[in-house]
Order: sequence, then structure tokens, then C-alpha cells
Amino acid sequence: MKMNELRRDPVSGIWTIILKSEDALRELLDHRRPVSQLTDKSCNFCRGQEHTTLPELFAIRQENTAANEPGWEVRVIPAKNPVLQIHGDLNNRGVGMYDILDGIGAHELVIETPEHGLEFTCLDEAQLSKVFIAYRERVLDLKRDERFRYVLVHKAHETPATARDCHAYSHIIATPITPLYVRQELMNAQAHYAYKERCLFCDIIHQEVSADQRIIFRNSKFVALAPFASRSPFQIIVLPVQHETFFEWNTEMPALAEAMHAVFKKMRTVLSDFDYIIVLHSGPNMLAGKRRGYWKTLERDFHWHVEITPQLTKFTSFEIGSGFQVNPVAPELAARMLNRAA
Amino acid sequence: MKMNELRRDPVSGIWTIILKSEDALRELLDHRRPVSQLTDKSCNFCRGQEHTTLPELFAIRQENTAANEPGWEVRVIPAKNPVLQIHGDLNNRGVGMYDILDGIGAHELVIETPEHGLEFTCLDEAQLSKVFIAYRERVLDLKRDERFRYVLVHKAHETPATARDCHAYSHIIATPITPLYVRQELMNAQAHYAYKERCLFCDIIHQEVSADQRIIFRNSKFVALAPFASRSPFQIIVLPVQHETFFEWNTEMPALAEAMHAVFKKMRTVLSDFDYIIVLHSGPNMLAGKRRGYWKTLERDFHWHVEITPQLTKFTSFEIGSGFQVNPVAPELAARMLNRAA
Repeated sequence: MKMNELRRDPVSGIWTIILKSEDALRELLDHRRPVSQLTDKSCNFCRGQEHTTLPELFAIRQENTAANEPGWEVRVIPAKNPVLQIHGDLNNRGVGMYDILDGIGAHELVIETPEHGLEFTCLDEAQLSKVFIAYRERVLDLKRDERFRYVLVHKAHETPATARDCHAYSHIIATPITPLYVRQELMNAQAHYAYKERCLFCDIIHQEVSADQRIIFRNSKFVALAPFASRSPFQIIVLPVQHETFFEWNTEMPALAEAMHAVFKKMRTVLSDFDYIIVLHSGPNMLAGKRRGYWKTLERDFHWHVEITPQLTKFTSFEIGSGFQVNPVAPELAARMLNRAA
Repeated sequence: MKMNELRRDPVSGIWTIILKSEDALRELLDHRRPVSQLTDKSCNFCRGQEHTTLPELFAIRQENTAANEPGWEVRVIPAKNPVLQIHGDLNNRGVGMYDILDGIGAHELVIETPEHGLEFTCLDEAQLSKVFIAYRERVLDLKRDERFRYVLVHKAHETPATARDCHAYSHIIATPITPLYVRQELMNAQAHYAYKERCLFCDIIHQEVSADQRIIFRNSKFVALAPFASRSPFQIIVLPVQHETFFEWNTEMPALAEAMHAVFKKMRTVLSDFDYIIVLHSGPNMLAGKRRGYWKTLERDFHWHVEITPQLTKFTSFEIGSGFQVNPVAPELAARMLNRAA
């Protein structure tokens, strides 16, 4: 397989991963469809199909079961077609005025349940906790590699009408560059702290709890709210109430699972089965950052959070071309609808 | 109609337009489809249907034909459901720690041809020239209003399988905030000039013409190229060869039409009828900028360009959550395929 490349556009500042696989091109031109994880009818994420995947990196298992055998409850495997590959040097270089890196990183899949067809937002609290523990363990492990500046946990769900496979899983992608959106959050949080001497996210929690117009759920450890400038209808973020920089340092997985479960229940009541994207924004890799002198004030500035973004509308040319977002449901209204549904 | 709102997310810096129309919400929950411009079968963009639209703002017409009557070749009308409305004050204010503006701006539609079903990329050079003249005239007019910091010209095309209407038109949206993506381009261009004392875009043209790996078309006035870090397969940007900040100052519409026509022809040969987005990035409104002290070095820093971005892949959760893009077709390969097609 040829090495993918990370290239930076000097105009927009956006990094693009250029895939070098001829399969990807062929599939694009033949079908105009993105590369599918599962190409045949049988599901290799199912119990009993463990030998059809790459060897597992981590699993939560019943006692006395062996790796790559049935008996797992959550299972993490390397992606078969990774966008970034684990072996090699970054080979950071210029091509004339342009910047380029080799496509080094990691791409893992977290199989969230052995049960085929069970959707992530329908998992019970105990199972959600196990998924979050798997995220934590893999993020901690990947952050030992100082080539990786960031480890991004994320997942997408498409309703069955459009889904190409229906065994719930998430992605963990480690990148040699801090993702642009995380970088913007870090910079805004840093500027807020520099001006106010308070954490931006702590301030948001304080204001939202006082206003009580956009709160979706609270327990003693977590708060879920519809952001004031929600980018899309029914967007929700979940944050730890106490200031905490890194998701992977969180020891309150049952409380997080309780919050997520309550939010999902409300969303499903209002939206039924809905398309969504979930992204976990934790702090970047301190090991990589410290050596390079980045993010010195990271621990005071940043506050990890989960973004749940329903995909109910299609991106328009205005949104794609401008960076503005258009949202037909005010977050106060979304909160009222979700809370009435409880 | 209630006033829409522009709200800034303090975490991401993204401005979202919150729509206040109950129709938008109802349509979203009923159909999970974006609001359609045309709701009935008959096309009110067609010749003879001029009385069914709002009165025209500009038209290129055959001699001796009256406004809002047949005889037009390109016609500009206000959008029936504007995302931003023209009347009112910005009412720039804070809500606690948050920033909010009233949804003031302009939203116009450019009907690109009287012929129903004729796609923009199939127009002949003469007609393309007329469309560009209509863009220029409306941008010049809207920029007389110093409430508007930016005027964005953009369009989308969906292949008939997914299109809800097939009379070609573009949008012109004037915004009271410079769009985030344009702002990032301006800042990158400014940083480049500060370091190199040369225009970023002039440097790109120089390097690309020397390398000759990603050039798609050239005439004496314009160059079309596949950007080094193309965000999506077969992305192309078209730029004036000579440094020019504002699209609307351009006097070479036939040469621009020739370049766009040649590019579209190559793209259609390789991609047939394809979904795409076209965005025109011109400099922001100097009138609004000067009074506020913005973009003092704008004229030397920025170089207008047209971005043609085919939508052949769907956005993934990795892309939406990170700001990375994944592109399965290297721009050198795209250029070879397009140039072989000529």
C-alpha cells in the first residue's frame, strides 16, 4: 500500500489527507460512494467472527475468555483501511511553498456491542460505561506515542435507510497534527482565560445553569446542554461540571453513562432514529506538546466535552462556502421539546 | 416573520444563523428535508412566470423588454425565504458572555438562464459572461451598504436523482460578519505577505505554473488549477493571473467565461453530471472595513478566486469533528485525468 499524505492548504489552513490507494479512486468513480468498512453481507464485527478482523488491541471480556475469541463486551481492533498508518516517520517536509507529512497516525475501531443492529444510543448505562472505558484505555495508550499530537474519538450513525452496515462502532484516530477545530477551541479557550482568568467552559456551565433555558440533563458530575449558538438542530454538548482537561483522566464513567443515556432517551423520543455525529474533544497530547513547547497553559485553559450533533439537515453551499451555519431550531426550543419529552 | 438571529459560539468561533420561522421547524420535523426554494411543480424561475417572484433587482434583457416581463437572459430576484433580511439594524449586543446580532443582510437569487433544466456547467461562454456580469453588478450594489461586511456569491448543483428543482440559479448573500472561511484566508494571506512581501496567491500561481503538474487551463488572464491540498476529489480553483483583490473590479468577463467553460467541459467529460459547490471568494467590503479599521492591507494581501468543489464523497464524522479533510484523489492525478479528457 502506498503511503497516504497529509498536505496543508496555505490558503485555508486546512490539512487534507490524500489517499493513495487505487481502490479508493476506483470505488469513487465506479459508485460515487465512500469506501465502506464492510464489503460483504456477513458482519465481521459479530460474535464468532473475531478471526475475520485484525487482532484486537483491547477488549472488555467475560472471565476466562481469550483474546480474539467470543466472550467480549466491547472490542477494539485496527481499521482494515486506515486513513493514517502506524508505522513510519512523519517525514515533515516542504514542497516549494507547501507543507507535507507522511500519513502517519493510528486508526482503530471500537465495536460497541456484540449485538448486531443494536444502536449506540440504545445501549444501557452499563454498556455505555464499558465503551467509555475502552475509549479511555486506547487514548491513554496512543498518547504514549509522541508522534501523535491528538487522538480523536468519534462516531457517526446513519438511519437504516442509508446505512451500509448496522453493527455499532466508533473510530479512534490519532493524528500527527492537532485537528483545526480542536485548535480553534484551544485558542478561543486560551484567549478567554487570558482575558477573564476563568475557564471558558466553566463560565458557560455557570451561565447556562443560572439561565436554565438550555439545560437538558444534570447529575452531580456532568451537565448536558444545547449550546447558545447550536450549529445544527438539537445539538447537545456534555461536559464534566468540575474543570477537567482530559477525558482520559475521567474516573466517573458511570455518571457520564447516566448523562449520555438520559440525553439519548430524550433525543430518541423527539427525533426517533436519527442520523448523528458524536465527537469527543479532549485536550491534545501533552507528551507531544511539551517537547515542542505547545499549549503551555493547556491544563487551565481547556475542558473536555462530548459533542452530539444530529444530522437532520444537509450542508448547503452557503455553509460549505462560508463557514456560517444555518439552524432552523433555536436551542431554547430544542431544550423545551427535549425536556417535555422526558 | 420573526427576525432571525446571528449567534457566535464562543468555543468554536462559528457564527450560526438561528432561523425563527416555525415553517422551517415544521418542515424539518415532518420531512427531515431542508427548506425548498420551489414548493410546487410549476417553476417560477421560467420565462413567463416573472410575476410569481418578487420584483427583479437586476436583469440582462433583450432590447425593448420591460422589468418583470419575459425577454431577460439573466435575472436577479430577492429570495422568498431569505436567511438574512434587508430591513433593520444589526442590534449588536451581548447576552451574558455570548454575542448576538439581528439577522440583517441580503439574500438574492441569480437565475442563470431562462431555459429550464439547462445546467450551469453546460452554459455557453456568452451566457456565463452574462451571469458573471450579474454577479458583479449585484456585489457592487450590495457593497454600498456598510452594514454588510461581506457579499458571498455561491451555488450548488445536485444531480437530478437528488435535485428538488432543476432551474439553474445561484445565491448572493450579504452578511454583517466576514465569513469564517474568508477570514481564515485573509489572515493566512496577510501572514504570508508579512513574511514574504509577496501575495500568497501570486506565489501559488507562480509555483504551479513552474511545476505544471496541477494546471487545468490557462489563458492570458486566468489560470485554473487543482490545489496542492485539494479538499475533495477534482477540486479546482480559478484565479486571475494578475494580482486583483476584488472580483467585482474584474473587467475580463469573457476571459473568465472561457476559463470556466473549458474547466466545466473537462469535468463533465470525466465526471458526467456531478454534484458540486461553487463559491466566489472576493475581498470583503472595504466600505464596512475602513470605518472599523479592518483589513488595512487588504488590497496587497488578497487575490480573488473561484472555488469549484465537486461533492463526490459524503462528509464523514472524522471530517466534521476534526476539520481534517480526506480526499481519495491526489490533485496531480485529477489534473492528469482532466487534461487527458480534453
